Amino acid sequence: MSKLKPWRVIDRSETLTTPVFQVVKHLCVSPKDGLEKSFVTLSAPEWVNVIPITNDGMVVLVNQFRHGTEEFSLELPGGVCELGQTTLETAKRELMEETGYSSDDFSLLCSLKPNPALFGNSIHTYVARGAERTGETHFDENEDLEQTLVSLAELKAMILDGRIDHALMVAAIGLFLAREGQAGRP
Amino acid sequence: MSKLKPWRVIDRSETLTTPVFQVVKHLCVSPKDGLEKSFVTLSAPEWVNVIPITNDGMVVLVNQFRHGTEEFSLELPGGVCELGQTTLETAKRELMEETGYSSDDFSLLCSLKPNPALFGNSIHTYVARGAERTGETHFDENEDLEQTLVSLAELKAMILDGRIDHALMVAAIGLFLAREGQAGRP
Repeated sequence: MSKLKPWRVIDRSETLTTPVFQVVKHLCVSPKDGLEKSFVTLSAPEWVNVIPITNDGMVVLVNQFRHGTEEFSLELPGGVCELGQTTLETAKRELMEETGYSSDDFSLLCSLKPNPALFGNSIHTYVARGAERTGETHFDENEDLEQTLVSLAELKAMILDGRIDHALMVAAIGLFLAREGQAGRP
Repeated sequence: MSKLKPWRVIDRSETLTTPVFQVVKHLCVSPKDGLEKSFVTLSAPEWVNVIPITNDGMVVLVNQFRHGTEEFSLELPGGVCELGQTTLETAKRELMEETGYSSDDFSLLCSLKPNPALFGNSIHTYVARGAERTGETHFDENEDLEQTLVSLAELKAMILDGRIDHALMVAAIGLFLAREGQAGRP
């Protein structure tokens, strides 16, 4: 049984608003000494990504330029929940927009915290089995993506050798492969 | 061979500085149409965590309150590189400060990008084998941590059932367990 006590948040004030997150200062009371201290946090919508698997057992990945690292990054298709949209709706929309693929068989794999020290939101990963190319891609204004199909064995190799080094993707793919392994699937 | 071209960054301006990150606006030239557009990014020091394994095969975890989620989070010990400190020095320092454990056998497991869309930094995970309690914990001013020792089997169960839901921890632990499995270790 934990003896740790939570901090109590007594005020939240927005410091900066950007198109992708807000910087929010939390004024808190320390559980140790009762003193007030402030902490900076990041507020963002829920994030979603998809592991799309074709009937041939291939996974659809996307390669795109990322402005944080100023490099290309090989990732699962995904994006940000729009206002009023569920995580499942977002998964279906982003899969179609970024790859032109759809599926009738979406299931939630996991909901993780991208970085609990800073962010309050979650990143939700869906598995889309029987994924098929049924439409056209539709990139956002500043997006330019390339698709690549890889086998599950290759996907595992890519997280192990660092070709996929986006931690949020590695987390989801690692969990997926561990569960597939447990279920005795290929 | 990829046909994608990178964005060219022509200016970086600091928008906000906080104790844990800077918000930096990148002014970029689009590879598609040559137009200038700006993107918001987050600049932070390198991050480090450690998988400390005792000679009994137990892994030392820490539980702590996190201000992003406003919840407790079960994590690997770790922290932020201080100026002039290597990632290995940070790993050794944070392990001692947060758990009182040390080891003579640190090896780098992986260096991942915590979120390439926003952050430019990396998170480095070290494995510390033969970890032993040799000193006293020394928490930062606003830190209050509890330690817990778990077996490798329990660690795997914890990422699969969501007791550990910090994505950066799940990524590192998943990679570690996958590599241990390949090496035929327990």
